[in-house]
Amino acid sequence: MKPGLLIDWPAARYPDATAVVFEGERTSFREFDARVNRLAHGLRTLGLARGARVGVLLPNRPTCMEIFFATQKAGLALVPLNARHGAAEHAWVLEDAAAEALVFGREFAETVGAVRTRVPGLRTVLAADGGVPGALGLGDLALGQPEAEPDVDVGEDDLERIHYTSGTSGRPKGVVITHGQSCHRLLQILINLDQPIGPGDVNLNVGPLTHAAGLMFTAYYVRGATNVILERFEPETVLAAIERLRVTSVLLVPAMLVRMLRMPGLERYDLRSLRRIWYGTAPMPLGPLREALRVFGPIFRQNYGMSEASQPLTFLGPEDHVVDGPAEVVRRLRSAGRPALGVDLRVVGDEGKPVKPGEVGEIVYQSRHMFREYWRRPDETARAFRDGWFLSGDLATVDEAGYVYIVDRKHDLIISGGFNIYPREVEEAILRHPGVAEAAVVGVPDEEWGEVVKAVCVLKAGARASADEIVAVCRERLAGYKKPRIVEFVPELPKNAYGKVERRRLKETRGGT
Amino acid sequence: MKPGLLIDWPAARYPDATAVVFEGERTSFREFDARVNRLAHGLRTLGLARGARVGVLLPNRPTCMEIFFATQKAGLALVPLNARHGAAEHAWVLEDAAAEALVFGREFAETVGAVRTRVPGLRTVLAADGGVPGALGLGDLALGQPEAEPDVDVGEDDLERIHYTSGTSGRPKGVVITHGQSCHRLLQILINLDQPIGPGDVNLNVGPLTHAAGLMFTAYYVRGATNVILERFEPETVLAAIERLRVTSVLLVPAMLVRMLRMPGLERYDLRSLRRIWYGTAPMPLGPLREALRVFGPIFRQNYGMSEASQPLTFLGPEDHVVDGPAEVVRRLRSAGRPALGVDLRVVGDEGKPVKPGEVGEIVYQSRHMFREYWRRPDETARAFRDGWFLSGDLATVDEAGYVYIVDRKHDLIISGGFNIYPREVEEAILRHPGVAEAAVVGVPDEEWGEVVKAVCVLKAGARASADEIVAVCRERLAGYKKPRIVEFVPELPKNAYGKVERRRLKETRGGT
Repeated sequence: MKPGLLIDWPAARYPDATAVVFEGERTSFREFDARVNRLAHGLRTLGLARGARVGVLLPNRPTCMEIFFATQKAGLALVPLNARHGAAEHAWVLEDAAAEALVFGREFAETVGAVRTRVPGLRTVLAADGGVPGALGLGDLALGQPEAEPDVDVGEDDLERIHYTSGTSGRPKGVVITHGQSCHRLLQILINLDQPIGPGDVNLNVGPLTHAAGLMFTAYYVRGATNVILERFEPETVLAAIERLRVTSVLLVPAMLVRMLRMPGLERYDLRSLRRIWYGTAPMPLGPLREALRVFGPIFRQNYGMSEASQPLTFLGPEDHVVDGPAEVVRRLRSAGRPALGVDLRVVGDEGKPVKPGEVGEIVYQSRHMFREYWRRPDETARAFRDGWFLSGDLATVDEAGYVYIVDRKHDLIISGGFNIYPREVEEAILRHPGVAEAAVVGVPDEEWGEVVKAVCVLKAGARASADEIVAVCRERLAGYKKPRIVEFVPELPKNAYGKVERRRLKETRGGT
Repeated sequence: MKPGLLIDWPAARYPDATAVVFEGERTSFREFDARVNRLAHGLRTLGLARGARVGVLLPNRPTCMEIFFATQKAGLALVPLNARHGAAEHAWVLEDAAAEALVFGREFAETVGAVRTRVPGLRTVLAADGGVPGALGLGDLALGQPEAEPDVDVGEDDLERIHYTSGTSGRPKGVVITHGQSCHRLLQILINLDQPIGPGDVNLNVGPLTHAAGLMFTAYYVRGATNVILERFEPETVLAAIERLRVTSVLLVPAMLVRMLRMPGLERYDLRSLRRIWYGTAPMPLGPLREALRVFGPIFRQNYGMSEASQPLTFLGPEDHVVDGPAEVVRRLRSAGRPALGVDLRVVGDEGKPVKPGEVGEIVYQSRHMFREYWRRPDETARAFRDGWFLSGDLATVDEAGYVYIVDRKHDLIISGGFNIYPREVEEAILRHPGVAEAAVVGVPDEEWGEVVKAVCVLKAGARASADEIVAVCRERLAGYKKPRIVEFVPELPKNAYGKVERRRLKETRGGT
């Protein structure tokens, strides 16, 4: 099978349309596809075997897209690295994946130097921007290579990428995605659109393109739409880009949306080109979501996904974002939506049977776009599947209409004195305190209770609160056993690149109340 | 993998919406899915092995849809039979496919009796409507079976169906479609929509549901739209159904459209609900297409496909249906559109290289939804593929913008005195004669020239024309060697169920000029 079957299409259909905009520079589909093909040919000259792993350590730049497509066309497997991590974490991932090559941006030259000494199997390092001693320049690699796609036979079961889990708990695991699964991921997005993507669309990419959620850009690319890339998130930059480039679609994590809503002068921007705001990857607080609906209009779509099967697993469409209406309808704003077409997703009890509406169970699913295995971890892979169903580890309830409400991660569940405590419930109680901006709750070991609740709080600028007050707001609303035994105040919560709180780091207690 | 991954979705999402309308009776998705599941369980009780072939001989009825989904869920392979064929043809196909069961409608009871004596391997015959001695009733088979989907493990490479080619040339060949390919067929339709299909859609099925083109109903079904089924085409019935049931979509073959346009009182029907008219399967004459655009509006979409890869291989969208404009744009009305997303389709010369714009070549393609092989015909399968490309046998040209113009079937090409003659070109010349309603041109063996052109004409009601006049209109417009040497007048052309002329039968010459 020809690897570029979907991604070649826009270059043939819309050769002169703009594929990518970055720092004011526009690249057409014809030009972009030619760059990808030259790069794919260049990668083939490195003598890597079919399915060999190529690490990528890049900030948000067009090179992220190019290397993503080029490795596909060259029959190599991509290993995206999290730009926020350090040399030790990169080395760990590259070693685990047995990567043989690494593409990196200029700002990571020093880090890559440290990584190389730790990963002897890394034969080739490629400087995306050139000019790094000891590293081959990506431009030199592609120079003079043919503009036609290389003749590579890639099967549906060949490795397309290994995406490491964000590692908010334990060591990251390599999520293995085949070409067949990757193709279905793309199809999965396209068939679930309530509004087709077309050449008139302009998609703004402001979260990391190398994250599983960032791969949304592929759906826009293959349909001939323009992808705008911003290197980092700043509310002003995003708003200005929407206005200037007539952006129609953007994927935002809740924290970004909240910062945009707080921007003074927000109303001065012309945002009428926006037709879709996708959000997800972390819970969206209800207050800001209502506010966002008022400001941006009924254009919100929520996708639920994970590295093991990126969005959409469930989908909450614009018609589900009802602010005024019957309670059972407005309540859906708190949900992640209903299962997407192509996914069989259920919330089941311990014995594998679907739970009744309102009961907590684990989300399990089957889908052609879900991953194949955890890289070289047969035991963890075996534990993750039951009769072909992937056990997601996410706890949820469903309502009568099939909407799925994420309760918490299964392994974040705190068991104290034999009782189940869902951190999110405690966090929501703490957020009732007027001085608290953010709160995260974890379980820490305790000799008497097994585990006890620890709350880590970030206060609003200028606000004050005591540990006793935090405990008091919890007692007001929750059963006694759910109240925090340890309360800590910190200037900010540790988060990964997509705004997800790194709970593992919160367990490393620094003091107590 | 769960076989019902896509087809189960609407029953969960829109249980109370109408899935099917037939003769005034509405069936909800919940009910329809339960019927399918009961039937699938029933089929499993027959003791057929995974992938065993089940023939289907039915007129257009909901049972066609039920059995299509039920065999999928039961892990059996469907063999749709052409309702217009006779016992000998059915027996040939069932024997070739080594079918073990056959589902048939009441009107075929006698035919099936004759078929059984010829096909000893046919262990079970199932009367769709019951009441046939010696046949098990389909209702009895499903009676008391569970409403949940059977627990069947079906892989992507398992047989989903064998669709026999219409056999307009030579013996029909069994086109083998796997579950993976069938899934991609459905995805292929959905990702190429310029307007998403949704629960508000009402799709009218008037061509045979068991034909490869008739399978379009699946795209509507999985997205929660309603499928209306008509047992046969009558212009009045179709127009009345559109008005009464607020039909939004319909697939018509050109002959149907022509008959509708000729209907007295056409303008009295309220057809404003229509948003899409799909057409294809045979060339659409330009005159009626212009007329249809005027009457129905800019809602036409053309799909090009074949049993080996059903629609869409290429797609001509509403924006391509330009009646007034520059010649190079209006010309596109004669094209089959441009390659669909997901298909790599090229027009190549004998050496496999893409032809220049305007040059005639053969359409070859790769797609995840194309068939795997011709059933038990390894030699024909080997001849049909070159380096992974399927050689379609359709001759075409492309223009600068990538539009594909079908010229003719490769094996319909007439070679006379060493010159290539494309039947369609001669047919178009003959149609210039004011008395000719339809014309078909074939090559017949000739000692001197190798082959000579034979024209078979159908005159308009009350019109007259002589063989000499037919030859004269050809000489006016074509090179001398292209003129017909034999001209025949017939009351109607032999056509298959989808209006395609059966050229093979035209070669059986009855007389001469």
